[in-house]
Amino acid sequence: MTLYLDYAASTPVSTVVLDEMNLWQKEHFANPSADHIEGSYSTRAIQNAREIIAKKIGAMPSEIVFTSGASEANNMALKGIAFKYLNEKCHIITSLIEHKCILNTCDFLEKIGFEITYISPNEHGEISPDKVKKSIRENTKLISIHHVNNELGVIQRISEIGAIAFEYGILFHTDAAQSFCKLNIDVDDMDIDLLSLSGHKIYGPKGIGALYIRDARNSEIVPLIHGGGQELGLRGGTSPTPLIVGLGSAVEHFPEEVSEQQNLFEQVIKDYNFVRNGSSSTLPTIWNITFNSDDEIKRFILEKNWLISQGSACNAMSNTPSHVLNAIGLSDELARRTFRISLPPFKCY
Amino acid sequence: MTLYLDYAASTPVSTVVLDEMNLWQKEHFANPSADHIEGSYSTRAIQNAREIIAKKIGAMPSEIVFTSGASEANNMALKGIAFKYLNEKCHIITSLIEHKCILNTCDFLEKIGFEITYISPNEHGEISPDKVKKSIRENTKLISIHHVNNELGVIQRISEIGAIAFEYGILFHTDAAQSFCKLNIDVDDMDIDLLSLSGHKIYGPKGIGALYIRDARNSEIVPLIHGGGQELGLRGGTSPTPLIVGLGSAVEHFPEEVSEQQNLFEQVIKDYNFVRNGSSSTLPTIWNITFNSDDEIKRFILEKNWLISQGSACNAMSNTPSHVLNAIGLSDELARRTFRISLPPFKCY
Repeated sequence: MTLYLDYAASTPVSTVVLDEMNLWQKEHFANPSADHIEGSYSTRAIQNAREIIAKKIGAMPSEIVFTSGASEANNMALKGIAFKYLNEKCHIITSLIEHKCILNTCDFLEKIGFEITYISPNEHGEISPDKVKKSIRENTKLISIHHVNNELGVIQRISEIGAIAFEYGILFHTDAAQSFCKLNIDVDDMDIDLLSLSGHKIYGPKGIGALYIRDARNSEIVPLIHGGGQELGLRGGTSPTPLIVGLGSAVEHFPEEVSEQQNLFEQVIKDYNFVRNGSSSTLPTIWNITFNSDDEIKRFILEKNWLISQGSACNAMSNTPSHVLNAIGLSDELARRTFRISLPPFKCY
Repeated sequence: MTLYLDYAASTPVSTVVLDEMNLWQKEHFANPSADHIEGSYSTRAIQNAREIIAKKIGAMPSEIVFTSGASEANNMALKGIAFKYLNEKCHIITSLIEHKCILNTCDFLEKIGFEITYISPNEHGEISPDKVKKSIRENTKLISIHHVNNELGVIQRISEIGAIAFEYGILFHTDAAQSFCKLNIDVDDMDIDLLSLSGHKIYGPKGIGALYIRDARNSEIVPLIHGGGQELGLRGGTSPTPLIVGLGSAVEHFPEEVSEQQNLFEQVIKDYNFVRNGSSSTLPTIWNITFNSDDEIKRFILEKNWLISQGSACNAMSNTPSHVLNAIGLSDELARRTFRISLPPFKCY
């Protein structure tokens, strides 16, 4: 039987979420910016979702800006802060194992004159807060380190990194696409100023995400998408009510219980010879494993018809080994024998 | 009975579109970038939608880049071209009556050193191709004029503007959010290099649109959203299969026939004293009308419980008269008595 074990790449939309979404596709479809009663229905539904999401991370509803997903949110955070310093430029700290959308954004910013420091992880895929601290310069304006690595599942020590950023008066952004709803997040406790999240990693729809911006109303972040005043003027475009309602609903109904597949998988995978990559603090739903030999891979593939990934989906189109596996020191040979198996998400801690 | 007549702001998702979308929400939900069979199903569905949309405007499938909507597409076109000239800057020609997302983008570009010329329309809301021609400078790199005005419904002479742009070797972008599917568009015949379109104006979903980019593979447009190589590397973020399928389906099933409401409306509106703004070449589904007196407005509101807009939805949040009505010379007093009534969309010509 074919078994889908690529949930870190994308999840299905759950039935309850889809039912809620569909009401806003056909029945109440008015533009939420419209100044009539149907417009105000949409606005209220959006505000309800905003409150649910804000509460989940200890933020205020007015600090949540909806985007088309985590990639846009990441772009918005980095470029939005950088563009405040377009003339004098500034320094940004990130890591070698961020999602490609962060790395490619940084590459773009570097080309137009910004300074970027890429922290390298240790062999377990951990970013040392101390390394971050030592990289701080006088003109460092932003630190962007992800919460959970999308290939390894490693949980970064973002509270400590946040505290360092706070101490130095530097903004701290975290890409929480893989951790949102799965791990506890409190933006105040963790000193997070900007946080990206995604709908389709938590049984919500594709095409929706959000950027948390501390004190968004007074933030001087430069919009990525200029528009007609939507989202406090920070993100243009007609607010997609069904997607936003779906994101809110996905958060509300995110499963607390461990899935059956998790236990089953842990029993089954024991039969194979492999090394699990990552640290002692790794999400239980993401397994990054290097098989001991090509024969072992063949046996695994013959016996198990699982839908899994080599690297992340976003790296799948390239034939080169993943930048994450490279950064933790895996040889090309080992990287070639490495797969990411990701299980149905649930609330971990 | 409450009657929704604000279709230029947003349309419902049609049943056939929604049914097609839902298949991709729960059954085949894999990340289209994933290198397994379920990923390839999604990729094929996306490619199918891309072909439908490309065909509709006489383009190649590889020239269609999916975005979160027309606002993002407009931002991507203007900033994407401008950022090629970030060091030396350049000159851009647009009009005073573009959508706010174009005007606010231009305002941003102006602040960082670009030169912008805003063409003023005549009192009928027409942009003169001759005025565009006379505004061309040596460093003009982009002309951006919309196809149909979202408040007035006026159809601009974009073929002529395209021909001028082509003659001078300048890129021509048009915001076709209000015209796509409703008017015939052929990007070659009309000398269009970049074209923005939207899903939720044509019975498709909110949160999806596209930017046509002539010869996108060789285009040097700077991505607005950097990502993991999706959309030829021009637009990052997990491709939202259900939304893209929905956009393709909306194009495929866009109604050829005039709706009943159109005929009914034309009978009913005759009872009132008003002036219809716009030119002789105006979309039959958008009526921008200035009532002759406040009493006439009162009578209209008492007798008709229609959901309509003052200005466009995107301007609804501000209390100032719409920039479009201002630009065609309406006094604040007349603008206050002006409403946009927009009827169910269908194929006009």
